[in-house]
Amino acid sequence: MKREPLYEGKAKRVYATENPHEYVVEYKDDATAFNGVKRAQILGKGAVNNAITAHLFPQLEAAGIPTHFIERLSDTEQRVRAVTIVPVEVIVRNVAAGSFSKRLGVEEGTPLARPVVEYCYKSDALGDPLINRDTAVALGWASEEDLGRIRELALRVRDFLTPYFAARGIRLIDFKLEFGKTPGGQVVLADEISPDTCRFWDAATGEKLDKDRFRRDLGGVEEAYAEMLRRVTSEAEGGKQKAEG
Amino acid sequence: MKREPLYEGKAKRVYATENPHEYVVEYKDDATAFNGVKRAQILGKGAVNNAITAHLFPQLEAAGIPTHFIERLSDTEQRVRAVTIVPVEVIVRNVAAGSFSKRLGVEEGTPLARPVVEYCYKSDALGDPLINRDTAVALGWASEEDLGRIRELALRVRDFLTPYFAARGIRLIDFKLEFGKTPGGQVVLADEISPDTCRFWDAATGEKLDKDRFRRDLGGVEEAYAEMLRRVTSEAEGGKQKAEG
Repeated sequence: MKREPLYEGKAKRVYATENPHEYVVEYKDDATAFNGVKRAQILGKGAVNNAITAHLFPQLEAAGIPTHFIERLSDTEQRVRAVTIVPVEVIVRNVAAGSFSKRLGVEEGTPLARPVVEYCYKSDALGDPLINRDTAVALGWASEEDLGRIRELALRVRDFLTPYFAARGIRLIDFKLEFGKTPGGQVVLADEISPDTCRFWDAATGEKLDKDRFRRDLGGVEEAYAEMLRRVTSEAEGGKQKAEG
Repeated sequence: MKREPLYEGKAKRVYATENPHEYVVEYKDDATAFNGVKRAQILGKGAVNNAITAHLFPQLEAAGIPTHFIERLSDTEQRVRAVTIVPVEVIVRNVAAGSFSKRLGVEEGTPLARPVVEYCYKSDALGDPLINRDTAVALGWASEEDLGRIRELALRVRDFLTPYFAARGIRLIDFKLEFGKTPGGQVVLADEISPDTCRFWDAATGEKLDKDRFRRDLGGVEEAYAEMLRRVTSEAEGGKQKAEG
């Protein structure tokens, strides 16, 4: 398959293919934090994130959430539908953590009385600033209708993933999603779901099993990513025994 | 009337009275900006803001927007209903300016394709951080129902004020509102509407006639506040002639 580099992000490369309706996404080991200020390589991260995403997206699709995912091609590559990314990142929070805790003075680990959906404008230059739906519509980044659909899908992803991870001994604290639009105008889940884009805490020990190990210099970064791949791909019972043991 | 100091804010003092259903609000000349980092006195500001608010609130009330305002008592004092302030500040934007422009890289003065309503958590300690409605509900600051009503009222205030000021030669760029709840649970407009809480630009010259003159050291601060009082209390035609002349 011929490939033309289309776009290189902080953690992935996107290639055009001979089929105008499909892209190939390559997952990199590069890690960045604090809007690119901190940089390193996390060995095996690309393969782990590719594998976790490739494991979860078909299950989300089966649960009625349309996604861009087609198939995993190799350790670090997957084939996806060619969509236009909506420049509005969606953060769904079950539990206060990270920037939310800092900004609002709410202790990390405080459960939220209801899921919180936040929106950020996808702009490295501006540091992905927090916005709301009015702003996204007023500045032409998404339509009211698409944002309503995005919110609905984001909450359905949460409703699927939260018990999925709980059954594998993981508290899903929060996660970031991106959505794309197909040429036909359908809103579909895009990007990835991985320890780069979620906060995962071990339900038994509280141990962080996500990119915060890198952001906060906690060590054991590669091990945490590998453990998350093991949990995600384990049977629910296996995960549960691990959490209880 | 006996008065007990209840609360002192950056620009106003609130007193309890013998009537448990009423407060007295005293407007101060004190001005602060950048979350209290910059401080000064603006001579006559308290009287101007009291007079402008006392002029506008009864008109909003007549237009069907319930407010806390009862009557102006003196140059710097007004009598209001005793309400509990909802700790969510509401910013309504017609045109990009200030923190919005800075955060999103949108040039000041860019008209917005639709009004944008933003919400901030009222907290000096945290610097009034931007939030959204999910966050306010999740953290118990307001109910979903009250926030819906607040948004509706905020947009109705905009629909009243924008042409009101336009007829007096003023572009209403953006403004901040606060709402209170009566003991009976009614949501009412509270706080003030003044050059402290709005951005007013002269429609003909673009000259700023609001607190940005203080924030940005533009000079002529007292004159701008006095001019806004003149515009607000002028007949619409008079304001229009001024703008055109």
